[in-house]
Amino acid sequence: MSDDFSPFGRLALIGIGLIGSSIAINAKARGLARHIAISTRSAQTLARAEELGLGDSYHRDAAEAVRDADLVILCVPVGSVGAVTQHIANDLKPGSILSDVGSVKGSIVAQMSPHVPEGVHLVPAHPIAGTEQSGPDAGFLELFEKRWCILTPIEGSNMAAVARLKAFWEACGSDVEEMAADHHDLVLAITSHLPHLIAYNIVGTAYDLEEVTQSEVVKYSASGFRDFTRLASSDPTMWRDVFLNNREATLEMLARFSEDLSTLQRAIRDGRGEQLFETFTKTRAIRRQIIEAGQETAKPNFGRNKPPKKWEG
Amino acid sequence: MSDDFSPFGRLALIGIGLIGSSIAINAKARGLARHIAISTRSAQTLARAEELGLGDSYHRDAAEAVRDADLVILCVPVGSVGAVTQHIANDLKPGSILSDVGSVKGSIVAQMSPHVPEGVHLVPAHPIAGTEQSGPDAGFLELFEKRWCILTPIEGSNMAAVARLKAFWEACGSDVEEMAADHHDLVLAITSHLPHLIAYNIVGTAYDLEEVTQSEVVKYSASGFRDFTRLASSDPTMWRDVFLNNREATLEMLARFSEDLSTLQRAIRDGRGEQLFETFTKTRAIRRQIIEAGQETAKPNFGRNKPPKKWEG
Repeated sequence: MSDDFSPFGRLALIGIGLIGSSIAINAKARGLARHIAISTRSAQTLARAEELGLGDSYHRDAAEAVRDADLVILCVPVGSVGAVTQHIANDLKPGSILSDVGSVKGSIVAQMSPHVPEGVHLVPAHPIAGTEQSGPDAGFLELFEKRWCILTPIEGSNMAAVARLKAFWEACGSDVEEMAADHHDLVLAITSHLPHLIAYNIVGTAYDLEEVTQSEVVKYSASGFRDFTRLASSDPTMWRDVFLNNREATLEMLARFSEDLSTLQRAIRDGRGEQLFETFTKTRAIRRQIIEAGQETAKPNFGRNKPPKKWEG
Repeated sequence: MSDDFSPFGRLALIGIGLIGSSIAINAKARGLARHIAISTRSAQTLARAEELGLGDSYHRDAAEAVRDADLVILCVPVGSVGAVTQHIANDLKPGSILSDVGSVKGSIVAQMSPHVPEGVHLVPAHPIAGTEQSGPDAGFLELFEKRWCILTPIEGSNMAAVARLKAFWEACGSDVEEMAADHHDLVLAITSHLPHLIAYNIVGTAYDLEEVTQSEVVKYSASGFRDFTRLASSDPTMWRDVFLNNREATLEMLARFSEDLSTLQRAIRDGRGEQLFETFTKTRAIRRQIIEAGQETAKPNFGRNKPPKKWEG
């Protein structure tokens, strides 16, 4: 058990994908809750979660899982939080904390707020962590380690509840920051949503080409393309919901991106090498800052360069 | 020494950045040449190459390095190969092989061909390998291991010379394929040039934002953005030259990309979730194929997930 954290009695996780299962693993390994109740609608996923021993009780019905829970975390796609909240509302315990892990916060608040009963503390949260994998098998202990978790308390949020949730995420290894929901959505539009959209798009473009075969794209992908395929293999349901629920900010960032791309396009067409050189130089600095901030490996090629076998000539 | 490779007498490397130094390390470790002559215009870089012990002789003047060389490989930015070829032309040995490592092949052939003396065998080559780092310190033995190297022989290329160069690259660990220069440039436009352009562009967009601070972009970059910063920290001179020298194919692929992006943009604006879901699903398959082809790690997050320190709660 974490030294400076007094555990929750019952933690209910609604949804047990990459994030849900990583929370479960953390809660169990670090003693953050005395009982972990897991719920998901899919019988198969629930059975797998039980097989993996992720929780203490398993429920097809989310309402059953949240009964008597002190902390309820919705780990479902952003498009589903409204319906889930409505479904569990009557079973939420007065004084309990209701949170989520969604990549969009304005829409989350709008969807959940109308259903949250008096006395239940809604504190939306977003752990900035993940991999391109999904499902209960994808979770692991270190996922949140040294990653940021953003809380977006709403007007009138209970301060003790916010502090409790902050301590929970810190116990999972995260650094926690508070932010207004709309600012969160703008920041994530550029750091996460647009990058995913661009990655999905370029992989899609390559997929549809006729002049270059898919097998050529695959063979020569190490020249840059493969980097994009990681984001472009993320969970389609999750990302569909992100774009539908952070529409304005994503479209705004996309408009900026497209303007800048037109500028580069013209520079290439007109053969303006100096302009290209200048753009390509200023972008170098940002990676250095990210590495210095501990958010990225300093190893070349993300450290994946080690060959399959050592040369033994 | 590699079992099935009879070494070159003198190998001259003109330019000693990431690729040049990796070739030098391979040639030395695997005994692919009896003498490695290294040349670069920068006194500082040349001194560093000597400090690293990358070669057997070191030359400020490329013409001096290529004298009596059996294999000459230009490892300079694509925009410089014409001038370098012109400069060394008179000193190239009859019967020797002249090659390069440029990411663009049509322009390379056009730039070099006019200067290549009768009896010297021009065989353009492109090892599809690299990292975001540059300079003589960036090279390493395993860079070409299991990566493709594309040869684009020109009309009338000497077949023995092509076979010799193929064997050289295979001895460095590469799989070798032959291709027409213009097809190479189209394939690389989608697998490498467009990805780099997009990466430079999105990092540039983030750099210029006013609503989101650079420190926020850095902090929350693990949500997707950081993946792009790797390509966007590649050598600016090299990439300026690539775009200026593969203008048509890059602009063509960029046009496709932009069309597809407009389609996605409209789907988001109109809230067409099914269309988004469909696009995001088909792109997943390509990464699986790349992993199966041994061109990418199967580990989530490129394997960089291991936390800085283990949790010891």
